[in-house]
Amino acid sequence: MRIAYLVPGPLSRGPLGPAELDRRQAFLAEHAFPGTAVEVRETDAGPASIESSVEEHLAVPGIIQTMPGLEAEGFDAVIIGCFGDPGLPAARELVDIPVIGPAQAGALMCVQLGERFGILTVVNEVVPSLRRLMRGYGLDALLADVRAVDVPVLELRDRREEVLATLTAEGQRAAAAGADALVLGCMTMGFLDVAAELTDRLGVPVVNPVLAALKAAESAAALGVAQSKTAYPPPRKGEAAARPV
Amino acid sequence: MRIAYLVPGPLSRGPLGPAELDRRQAFLAEHAFPGTAVEVRETDAGPASIESSVEEHLAVPGIIQTMPGLEAEGFDAVIIGCFGDPGLPAARELVDIPVIGPAQAGALMCVQLGERFGILTVVNEVVPSLRRLMRGYGLDALLADVRAVDVPVLELRDRREEVLATLTAEGQRAAAAGADALVLGCMTMGFLDVAAELTDRLGVPVVNPVLAALKAAESAAALGVAQSKTAYPPPRKGEAAARPV
Amino acid sequence: MRIAYLVPGPLSRGPLGPAELDRRQAFLAEHAFPGTAVEVRETDAGPASIESSVEEHLAVPGIIQTMPGLEAEGFDAVIIGCFGDPGLPAARELVDIPVIGPAQAGALMCVQLGERFGILTVVNEVVPSLRRLMRGYGLDALLADVRAVDVPVLELRDRREEVLATLTAEGQRAAAAGADALVLGCMTMGFLDVAAELTDRLGVPVVNPVLAALKAAESAAALGVAQSKTAYPPPRKGEAAARPV
Amino acid sequence: MRIAYLVPGPLSRGPLGPAELDRRQAFLAEHAFPGTAVEVRETDAGPASIESSVEEHLAVPGIIQTMPGLEAEGFDAVIIGCFGDPGLPAARELVDIPVIGPAQAGALMCVQLGERFGILTVVNEVVPSLRRLMRGYGLDALLADVRAVDVPVLELRDRREEVLATLTAEGQRAAAAGADALVLGCMTMGFLDVAAELTDRLGVPVVNPVLAALKAAESAAALGVAQSKTAYPPPRKGEAAARPV
Amino acid sequence: MRIAYLVPGPLSRGPLGPAELDRRQAFLAEHAFPGTAVEVRETDAGPASIESSVEEHLAVPGIIQTMPGLEAEGFDAVIIGCFGDPGLPAARELVDIPVIGPAQAGALMCVQLGERFGILTVVNEVVPSLRRLMRGYGLDALLADVRAVDVPVLELRDRREEVLATLTAEGQRAAAAGADALVLGCMTMGFLDVAAELTDRLGVPVVNPVLAALKAAESAAALGVAQSKTAYPPPRKGEAAARPV
Amino acid sequence: MRIAYLVPGPLSRGPLGPAELDRRQAFLAEHAFPGTAVEVRETDAGPASIESSVEEHLAVPGIIQTMPGLEAEGFDAVIIGCFGDPGLPAARELVDIPVIGPAQAGALMCVQLGERFGILTVVNEVVPSLRRLMRGYGLDALLADVRAVDVPVLELRDRREEVLATLTAEGQRAAAAGADALVLGCMTMGFLDVAAELTDRLGVPVVNPVLAALKAAESAAALGVAQSKTAYPPPRKGEAAARPV
Repeated sequence: MRIAYLVPGPLSRGPLGPAELDRRQAFLAEHAFPGTAVEVRETDAGPASIESSVEEHLAVPGIIQTMPGLEAEGFDAVIIGCFGDPGLPAARELVDIPVIGPAQAGALMCVQLGERFGILTVVNEVVPSLRRLMRGYGLDALLADVRAVDVPVLELRDRREEVLATLTAEGQRAAAAGADALVLGCMTMGFLDVAAELTDRLGVPVVNPVLAALKAAESAAALGVAQSKTAYPPPRKGEAAARPV
Repeated sequence: MRIAYLVPGPLSRGPLGPAELDRRQAFLAEHAFPGTAVEVRETDAGPASIESSVEEHLAVPGIIQTMPGLEAEGFDAVIIGCFGDPGLPAARELVDIPVIGPAQAGALMCVQLGERFGILTVVNEVVPSLRRLMRGYGLDALLADVRAVDVPVLELRDRREEVLATLTAEGQRAAAAGADALVLGCMTMGFLDVAAELTDRLGVPVVNPVLAALKAAESAAALGVAQSKTAYPPPRKGEAAARPV
Repeated sequence: MRIAYLVPGPLSRGPLGPAELDRRQAFLAEHAFPGTAVEVRETDAGPASIESSVEEHLAVPGIIQTMPGLEAEGFDAVIIGCFGDPGLPAARELVDIPVIGPAQAGALMCVQLGERFGILTVVNEVVPSLRRLMRGYGLDALLADVRAVDVPVLELRDRREEVLATLTAEGQRAAAAGADALVLGCMTMGFLDVAAELTDRLGVPVVNPVLAALKAAESAAALGVAQSKTAYPPPRKGEAAARPV
Repeated sequence: MRIAYLVPGPLSRGPLGPAELDRRQAFLAEHAFPGTAVEVRETDAGPASIESSVEEHLAVPGIIQTMPGLEAEGFDAVIIGCFGDPGLPAARELVDIPVIGPAQAGALMCVQLGERFGILTVVNEVVPSLRRLMRGYGLDALLADVRAVDVPVLELRDRREEVLATLTAEGQRAAAAGADALVLGCMTMGFLDVAAELTDRLGVPVVNPVLAALKAAESAAALGVAQSKTAYPPPRKGEAAARPV
Repeated sequence: MRIAYLVPGPLSRGPLGPAELDRRQAFLAEHAFPGTAVEVRETDAGPASIESSVEEHLAVPGIIQTMPGLEAEGFDAVIIGCFGDPGLPAARELVDIPVIGPAQAGALMCVQLGERFGILTVVNEVVPSLRRLMRGYGLDALLADVRAVDVPVLELRDRREEVLATLTAEGQRAAAAGADALVLGCMTMGFLDVAAELTDRLGVPVVNPVLAALKAAESAAALGVAQSKTAYPPPRKGEAAARPV
Repeated sequence: MRIAYLVPGPLSRGPLGPAELDRRQAFLAEHAFPGTAVEVRETDAGPASIESSVEEHLAVPGIIQTMPGLEAEGFDAVIIGCFGDPGLPAARELVDIPVIGPAQAGALMCVQLGERFGILTVVNEVVPSLRRLMRGYGLDALLADVRAVDVPVLELRDRREEVLATLTAEGQRAAAAGADALVLGCMTMGFLDVAAELTDRLGVPVVNPVLAALKAAESAAALGVAQSKTAYPPPRKGEAAARPV
């Protein structure tokens, strides 16, 4: 089975360089089921990081452009590599292989673990946006809290210990607000690999969205199901639709 | 008061040419309150028409790029000229003047007119997408039905009589399903100017989303309110965010 | 366009006298779109102020009695001048012109401005009643908080500075509870004209329900739509229904 | 225990005369628990029958006027004798004894009997109004259908067999729409005493709202609980509130 | 009328002995309507007390085994004597007489008393379970809070004063969280007979679930209605189903 | 990784004999990820098949009894082998390894595939029970339809072709009712291995609940997360709770 993990922006041209793509691929490979090959890809164009609806939307054309090629290459599933699930319905319309959004996959895993769940994300600015996303998924009544550590995505890795401490404090607040399962609301946060440590500290399960998405992708591909074409119909104008005039 | 109506694509370069922009501006001007100047603008890049989530998303970068300039020009409000409300949260993050989505404005007007409402749109492909949009707005339980005439946007004008007949038939089905107010789910359909005729034929109010959006824009501007900056915070990275690397 | 603003009680015979009607009409006129004539009317009978469900209901017969005459006079829309929207369904049944409830109009404007909204009202006693009202409108899940300044309606004007300070404090509490747009939950509060000042102080948009209702009335009339007669059917027994035996 | 059943209008001055009050009292007495005395009262003013929101609201001042006296007389609970639950919140504010609305009581009994429920009412005009009522009670998602026999209240008794046949047909439609328990949506329908017969014919339980309300009143009084004064606070202006200026 | 109150476990073989059954029967008899005979029964097998989903489920086979016999004995209704409503759907499938769950009955009585309600229960462990139960009943949006005194069921009686003090404190917290009616979430707590005292202390009505269930049972039996056989169909394999192979 | 698939009843002593356990284990092994060992176990006592809430509940004590042993044996996750998810909360309280309910897992997979989903199950009797289950999971608003083939579980295998034809017809009805993804609502149906064929016939994805549960179990175990102990706390009385007195 081959899974594509699509970074929605030219990460390799950012401060972390191509090594970061390799590091992420290694992390995914380490956690994939035997027999699953995960390849990390990036889109040609997109913002350096995604911390607003603006950046989310600017990441989508690159995703759209990349989707048909990934299907043609023979991937069995694609993960959109951003917790905002940017362009998820569009990506699902374009291909017949399952497309996974980490926010949806992470939230649905939480739903199996607790009575209500919470999200711990990066910057305060994305909190309302994540609430809207969950409402759109029909999960509003199961969402107890969304909280942020207020550290920019690009500083997460350098400030790991501080982030872990803040995640602990914010996680305790989310638990007090009724969340008995949590998902980290940012993929870079997911690649920090702190979910297990947080689970220990908080006493409630903390889901790594990178891995929730990976497992959802492997699961859908294993079942041979993909998004419904009545819910995500292919654009009537076909490929041409992908080309703005 | 100056309202910008932003067509999310280069309509003037399409088959209808620049005259269509003028025709739309004239229609809006005719229905604006005295003292309101409406200017129809178009983005530089975008699909020829929007009939899928793919096309919706491809229209957004052009919208994002255009928003700050519209605010700088002194407009008092902006209408996103597509019933899918493409990029609405992103556009709202970027400016301090109210940004109106016709689907949201049209649905909310329906909510004041009936117990539950319905949407009559263009092609079948956008039906699930409009259902998702309404769920995201928290209006799921008030939505009785979404139905389509299944005529492509670009053919609507030439097939006006056929479209009107089909709208009547689909509107009756929506009413039978519990919708006692309807909104037309496409801006080109709105510019056909058939809402009054349909209201007569169907016996339930039919809202023109072009005018619902215009009135929502005029209303918000008149009250001096705009989207909350706690719900739609400006991107932390500022202008730069609008520039994909 | 002619809009009637109907005060549900004999305000002119109260402590503020007929001058208060003129003052309110002037405020409305000042904020109406050019070409809109607003006339403030009052019903013959009703409580001195409305601060309970009891008083709300006692205001309704006067509203019912007045509605047909307003339509006959040629008004294009009617605003029920109380934030409890007293008798709104009944008034809508009686006429073919749009009837606007300020609570519904104000809440729906908030829905366009934020992710969830709050209400700041007069006395504590109306808080549960406003929650019930919003549930009936299907907006329960979008309502973050309802708070009161606990100043009686008739004292609002004399205690303006105190009210403004308390509104600020309660508004901050509502924002902390998740409301990122607020509506003032009382028409007398609306005529205090403090929404802009509060918007500045709180950093979230504060909607004046007087103006939200005015704009909703102007908007519906401009579109030529009114409440659905399938949702608000005329009483079968006709006029006679309005005459208790 | 003494229960007042308050007819919201001068029924005794209608076509059925005072005998109808006696007939209703006898029916209630027959179904009351031993030791419960039910007295049927009527208000001084109100519409001849209630088949619209207009009439519902016109019935309320009479109810409000009567409530304090019923409490002073020593009744242990009051039933509002109309399925629209007219003025229920107002009546609850005015007294410390439990006030029961038959629609709420009947719906809640249905909720214990099935997965979703339906309402079978008199005229088509009240269908949307009953839907709004149920939404206000938070029971929207449990309501499968509302259907009407389309026979005016005052003709129900004379057309009993026809009504029973129509109720059977409409009940089958409601069951097909997912209702597995039904409540009759009109008190005069309740006094026709057809619920048991309909239960047999339809194979789903049919609740008589007259009796559901009676049992709810006896139950609340037996428990010594009444509506919460934080949810239904007494009007601050006290008795005076009941006197329109 | 004969009502069976079924204790889901061999209470008489517990520390309180057979006297506790008599005491409970006396309490029920004291609060039953004249003419109602209540008999307390116990199942042959079940946990000593129910403070987890595990114990709840272990109590169900005994309930299932007992139901047909109770119907055969001629009881008119059965109350499941545990606030977790263990096995309620199963019990309802097995008989044609109404089966009442105290949690459902208590919550529905609260719904008539306030705008939102709360539950005060025994141990912290059952809080999430009660939230799930209320969600399953469709009452999620009306539930403001669930709180526990954290005293084991079997110690409730000996620590009555302490329990009352804690219930007062937790009840105040629930009221502050928006509950304006409360139900005690444990039957042993109900038999402590503290609801009236708590109602006085808290200023909001506190419902005794023992009595709410008793009244619901008497009410359903009086109306001659029972659970819908379309919602709770009898097991196709009949009696045999009750016998595990 | 070792996954236990727990059949809630002594399947090996039924008409299909021990071979059926082997057949199921082979099917699971065939679809497991490399490195996952699935072992099919059965409980000592339980009904021959589960087609009612009665049988569901009778299956639970066996499940409860078996859970601690499965954890002690070193399994990494347990699947409850029945689509009614019998005893799921109880099982989750008892162990620290993830426990998966196929109905929940199957529904959540559907949620990722479509806008709304449907369930195709065995006998009509379980339809209301599955609706209640989904409401309890907070998925009510996403559930479009539940339909049954009305073939008893034990006859499914012998009537495979007939079942497939009926599933196709019922699936079309569910799709017409708005379901754009479907899950088979019975594990024996899952082991018929018809999901792929149905997906082809219906044009919407059909999820096999056996495999959805398997993948959910493998996923949770791979992430190292299990049900939250704040949502599913261990019974306070410990092991003893599992022993009815």
